[in-house]
Parts: sequence; structure tokens; C-alpha cells
Amino acid sequence: MKKPHIVVVGGVASGPAAIAEARRTDPDAVITLLEKGPDISYSACEMPFLISGLIDRVERLVRHTPEAFAAKFNTDVRIYSEVESIDVTARKISVRSLKTQTRFTLNYDRLILATGAKAIIPSSLEASTKDVFVLRSLDHVRSISEVIKRREIRHAVVVGAGYVGLDAAWALNARGIRVTILSPSGILSSALDAPLGQIVKAHLQDAGIQLRKERASGIEKAGDGRIIAVLTQEGEKIGCDFVLIAAGTVPQTELGVNAGLKLGSFGGILVDDQMRTSAQGIWACGDCTERNELIFNASIRAPLSLNAFRSGRVAGRNAARGGHGRASVISPLVHAAAIGLGNLEIAHTGWNQSESLKLGKDVVTASIQSRTASAMAANSPVHITLVAERSSRRIVGGQIVGGPTSASRVNVLTAVLRAKGTVEDLYNIDYVYAPALAPAHDPLFVAARMLQKSF
Amino acid sequence: MKKPHIVVVGGVASGPAAIAEARRTDPDAVITLLEKGPDISYSACEMPFLISGLIDRVERLVRHTPEAFAAKFNTDVRIYSEVESIDVTARKISVRSLKTQTRFTLNYDRLILATGAKAIIPSSLEASTKDVFVLRSLDHVRSISEVIKRREIRHAVVVGAGYVGLDAAWALNARGIRVTILSPSGILSSALDAPLGQIVKAHLQDAGIQLRKERASGIEKAGDGRIIAVLTQEGEKIGCDFVLIAAGTVPQTELGVNAGLKLGSFGGILVDDQMRTSAQGIWACGDCTERNELIFNASIRAPLSLNAFRSGRVAGRNAARGGHGRASVISPLVHAAAIGLGNLEIAHTGWNQSESLKLGKDVVTASIQSRTASAMAANSPVHITLVAERSSRRIVGGQIVGGPTSASRVNVLTAVLRAKGTVEDLYNIDYVYAPALAPAHDPLFVAARMLQKSF
Repeated sequence: MKKPHIVVVGGVASGPAAIAEARRTDPDAVITLLEKGPDISYSACEMPFLISGLIDRVERLVRHTPEAFAAKFNTDVRIYSEVESIDVTARKISVRSLKTQTRFTLNYDRLILATGAKAIIPSSLEASTKDVFVLRSLDHVRSISEVIKRREIRHAVVVGAGYVGLDAAWALNARGIRVTILSPSGILSSALDAPLGQIVKAHLQDAGIQLRKERASGIEKAGDGRIIAVLTQEGEKIGCDFVLIAAGTVPQTELGVNAGLKLGSFGGILVDDQMRTSAQGIWACGDCTERNELIFNASIRAPLSLNAFRSGRVAGRNAARGGHGRASVISPLVHAAAIGLGNLEIAHTGWNQSESLKLGKDVVTASIQSRTASAMAANSPVHITLVAERSSRRIVGGQIVGGPTSASRVNVLTAVLRAKGTVEDLYNIDYVYAPALAPAHDPLFVAARMLQKSF
Repeated sequence: MKKPHIVVVGGVASGPAAIAEARRTDPDAVITLLEKGPDISYSACEMPFLISGLIDRVERLVRHTPEAFAAKFNTDVRIYSEVESIDVTARKISVRSLKTQTRFTLNYDRLILATGAKAIIPSSLEASTKDVFVLRSLDHVRSISEVIKRREIRHAVVVGAGYVGLDAAWALNARGIRVTILSPSGILSSALDAPLGQIVKAHLQDAGIQLRKERASGIEKAGDGRIIAVLTQEGEKIGCDFVLIAAGTVPQTELGVNAGLKLGSFGGILVDDQMRTSAQGIWACGDCTERNELIFNASIRAPLSLNAFRSGRVAGRNAARGGHGRASVISPLVHAAAIGLGNLEIAHTGWNQSESLKLGKDVVTASIQSRTASAMAANSPVHITLVAERSSRRIVGGQIVGGPTSASRVNVLTAVLRAKGTVEDLYNIDYVYAPALAPAHDPLFVAARMLQKSF
């Protein structure tokens, strides 16, 4: 039997996970990885550490060099190789080498798209200047590290206040750079409801980070082309010499569109629970995809590391099996994320109140403040907001903001969400108590009691 | 209508919780609290802080003085009042005042027993000496603090290596006292299986605490009656001037036995899910009771703070309702506990392998070592052992030992246990990843993957 040729497009996280699993599943398959950039298999989430100076070499974020990956997984790894089009019928792709600017054609038996997502650049900021950056790839962080090292930045504007924007703003501030965050929707607005958002805001301001609930409307350049200010729709002019855009991402689906694949409502490649696209022989995984979440069965994008890994594994295994044997299936998503900003930990899971209302759901919420450990031991404040569906009493989301160890509690909430647990199920958990580690009444227990009273 | 008289026996934790809830349920009830000791409403779990010197006044552990509690919950609080017998038919109890040595009789309409548990004193150590202590009440810790302050202790022997024994041993060691732990069954043997028990053992030894897998067989006294050594069954003689016995507890059920209440297999007062005993009009809660746990439906004792509180609330509410209205029910137990010993955190939930085997269960286990956060950030090792039922793939228990933040993960396992989740359910949780807070692959995720491979 002819060995199947599996081609994977995209080498950051989900693609390599797909290959590792495909190789485990079929030791004989021929596997090719095509990546348009110079790097594969790296930890994008740790790029802010290079900005803050916690680590000083980009190489520390690289899990496998192309050579090491090729050897470990017996894969033909081609960097600087951009796939331009897919011929679904003939199972052929056209590839351009960004090094040599030559094109070649590759046949595949099974194709996995792991093309990721790209930064949304507001049209008002599109005017190209070398002082406007995004933070999506190692090349991006190399450039940013370079200007930081040359000490060229005095005042940075970060556009966007999601997890990535806050992470980057905190890291820039840690380097002694004055930082202003521009975000018309406020802080982490799709994750946190107002009460906890306010706490994060106060923490950022205490650290000297400016927050403006304004929308960037343009930039002002000096005669030499260097940026000197960001202008806002509200008529402000914020002097700066560096702009980082972290206003969200969109899936990179040009290839998928070209191949006629169905997209979801957020523009991601639509996949089923086997990570199959709408075309025979094509799977997709990671940030370029969109699939259903567990709680309201809504289609969502979850550009998260663990989802990249998990969905990559499922796509890789199913592609390697080529439709034979029992398919590997992926569980519906719960969107959960966390971030640490100095000594403040922030986490959320599922749906917050405002996003639930947008979906037309009738929810009940409760917020509490508690402590992370006994008052006799070292402890910090922790704030929790819970959201439950009124009719079913099911927990649909939770938010946590507090001192060290606070965020770890979010995984308990996610476990309850996944089990479709009610507020009573959350209350009934036998939380451990050890004075130095957790108070007699765990903050989640206190929050569950408060939520019970709110129905 | 005559106001019901609710009498609660025992004032440490579960009794006060029962009264608080009874008062909320029935603002008009007449409530009496009888406590044989001088203190009520205190945090027994924090007593080691007085031994280690982290806090210096017993009063800091007192949540309510008798006077404050009486006022807050409109309750007749009688300390130094020991109940000697119950006349179930006449609904009368006989009480002895330990202050005046007088006796009196009290009628009740509804009775709640919250008599707690008492230390098991091995018969070999019963020979009374003022240098042999237990750690069950504020009076006990007052005495221990006293001898520590007088600097009379140089070498302590702690008998027992459960959570309480380790907590006390660590606290004594923190005070500069040489400590030897005697435990024939090893370290935390009902909570941890051997691999993680070894890690705790090494940690204790690194801190200078001696461990002997031997059984105490007697004590040796000097002419003045002071202890000079503990003798072991293995023929050793361990010189010491202080002995703390932490070899487990037994429910204090003399009153229950006197009233003819049914006991469980561990000698606890048997209660149903409404915390009703086998006698009409008598409820029981907290450490003196025994009830069913969730996983194997086995009868267990769970002398834990949260169970004392929860079961007290249910008993209090149901007693106040006196059988009218919808009864409040308690969920079956999961036994989960944790402890911090310096920078090592230890936690377990559910059943370990050895205890599962004793119940005749066919289980699969897996152990992993991982890190608490990204390698780029501050992180510590964390060790996890998972136990699952082979036939159902249900998680039945887990053990965690590691550096700071390790233990918090045990609540995630308990949430999965409560939902009767399988190893796949544990794998599917959307663990958050934030380099400074949790690694890309959470240790629980890594452990779940390893367990999947172990079937």
C-alpha cells in the first residue's frame, strides 16, 4: 500500500501537535510541514517575557528548531514556504518559497490547515510606520525587543485591553516605559463584568499604566516618518514613540476560502468534532478554526494554547487514520483563560453576564470578596463573580480577580461547567481547608452560597 | 403555639453552625447550647499556629465568646456543662455543672448532638504524666503553649503521622524543638500511596524531623514523674521530654449510646441525609457522626471543618423546622483534605490505591511529575497520583504533593469526583494557561493523559 502523504500548513502550535500525533498514529506516513515564517514549534504566549526582560533570548521560546522537529517526527519541514492555493479536487497545493520566490506544486493525500490567526489592525492605524507593532510571531517580538534594547521607547500606546494587550502593557511598563492603553470597551470586557473589571483597572493605574476608554482614530508622524502621537476619535492626541496593536485577531482563512471551505460566524474555518472541514480530505485545527462551545452550544473561536494542542492532536490522529478505524473526537469548548499582572491574578471561564445577555440568556449573578487563606496566615483578597442560568440553575461562567493563588480556582469552575453542574453542585464540593493554603470557607464555597441566595 | 426548645450539645464548630442556621430558620425558637469545656466557637485547625509561634494568643482562634454568641444568636449558652444522659421518651437530659458539681434536668423538644471526637490514646501511653499531650481543644493548646513558653521541651515525640500529627510536628520543629514522629503505618498512609508518601517523608527529614515506622509500647519516667523516653515495640528507646499523641480520633458517642442511637461501623452516630439519628427528635452533626460517601457509597467518618459546618447547618435547619416543610438534605461526602508544611503542599481527595484495594475495588493508577508554572517563570515541582475504577474509568481519588499552589488543584479533582467524571472528563477540562500561573499543560491534564495510557 502506498504511504499516505499528510501535508500540514502552519507550524506554530497546532500544526506541530497534529504532526506529533499523526506520527504516533502512523509511523509510515510521509509528512510535510509548510510554514511561511522562519520559526516553528514555539511558545507564543511567553513572548511578553522577552518584552519585560524576564528572559533575554528568543530561542528560549523555541521548543523545536526546524531541524530538531524534522528529525524527531520524521517530517519534511519547509520554512519560508507559503501555500498560495489548494486544488481540492486534484489534492494539490501551490507553494511559494519566500526565500527564492519560486513556486512549486505538492500533492497531498490528507491536508491539515493550522494557519492560525492574525492581528486585527484598525484601518485608522494602517498607515505604515516602523513604530507600529503587533505581537503574533517570534519575528514580531524580535523587532520589539530590538527597539526596547536600543532604548528608543519612552511612551508606548497599547491598543486593546484583552489578555494579550494587558500582558504586553504590563511587560512594557516593567521595562520602565510609560504606557497608555486605549480600549473603547474597557478592560477585558468579554471576560469580566464591570465589578471585577474595575479592580483590574485600579491595579493597572496603581502600577502607573494609563487607561483611556477611547478609540484610536489615526496616528501623527514626524517629518522623518517616526510616530509622534496616536489620535483618538474623542479628539485626544496621545504623544508616543511606539504603538502596539492588540485589538484582537481574525482567523487566517484565505487558503480555506480559496478551497471553498465553509466558515463560521466569526470567520473561522468551520470544523466538526473530528476537526474535519467541509471538504473531503481536509482537516483544520487551532486558531484558524471555529467550533461549538459546551454551555450554550454557541459557535465560538478560542485562540488558546490548549485548544491548539488538543485540536491539533485530534486532527493529526484522524488525518493519519484517513477515515479508517474509530475517529478521535474532541469535546465542545469552554472558553477559559487567565493572566498574571504582577501580584494580581485574573481568570475567567464560560460566559460573563454581559455576553450571556447578548445571547438572550436569562442569568443570575453574584459577586463576593473573600481571602485566599486563613486570616492567621499569609493571604490576599480574592473577588469572584458567578453567573448561572436562571431556569436551570446551571453555572454558565465565573470570573476571579485576586492575589496569588486566586486564579487556580477557575479550573474548579470549569470542571463544574463541563459537568453541567448547578449552583448546588458548586456549593457541595468538599473544598479542602488548611489555614496556610485555603480558608475554612473556600472563596468558591462562599460565592456559591451567595449565588444560591440571589435566585 | 408554644415555642420549641432546641438543645444543642457541643459548642466547638458543628454545634454553633447548627444554632446559627436554626436561628435563621426560626427566629422564635428557644435555643440552649451546652458545652462541657470553657470555650465555644473556635478554630481548632489553627491550633498549630500557637505551637509554631505564628500567633501568640489563644483568643485569636475564638470566633465568638460565649457572651457574644449568646447575644448574636439569642441563645442560652452554658459552658462547663456536661450532659450525662438523655431520656429519649420523656425528652429530658441530665446535665452536670463542672463548675459547681451540681446536676439539673432540662426538657427539650428537639436535640442536636455535636459532641465531636476525642483523641485515641494508645493504651501503652495511658500512664498519666503531665508531659503527654493531645491537641483537641483550646485547653490542650493552652497547656502546650505554656510548656513551650517555659522552654521546657527539647525533644518531642509525636505519635501518629496523619494530617494533625504532621501539622503539630512541623510546628514544634519550627520552634526549634527536636522532633521524632512514630508511625507504624508510615506518612499519611490513608491519604497518600507510597510514591507521594516518600516525597513527604524526604521533606520532613530535610527539615530535621526524624521518622520511625515503629509503634510506641510505653513510656519511661524519671523519679520525679517527668517523662524521659518513649519505648517502641521494636525495642527502641527514644529519649524525650514531651509527647504529643495524634494517632487519630474516635467519635464521642457515650451520650448517643446512652440514648440507644444506632452507631456506624466506625463507631460514629449513624445519620441519614437529613442528619437525623435513629431516634425521633434527635439530630447529630460534625465529628461524632458517620455517613455515606459519594464514590463507593461506603460509610466513612470525615472529621473535617467544612463537614462540621455543612452538617451543622442541615441539622440546625431540620431541627428548627421540626419535621415541617421541605427537609434540608446533605450531599454524600467526598473525603478531601490538605496541609502545608513549609513550602510543601499536600492534598488528597477520595480514595487512594491502598484504601481502594481494601474495599475490594479494581483500580488503575498513574503518577506524574510536572511543574506548577512555565519553566520561564517561578515554578516548583508538583507530583500527582490519580486513581480510577478500571471498569467505569471513573476517577475515584487523587493525591497531590508539591510546591506553592500545588494543593489548590485538588478541588478540581473533587469537582470531577462529585460529577462522577471519568479520566476523559478530567482530560477534557479547559485548564487555563498563563506562563506565570500555570504551565501550557496543567499538571492535572498531564496526569489525566498518563492515566488514559495506563488502562
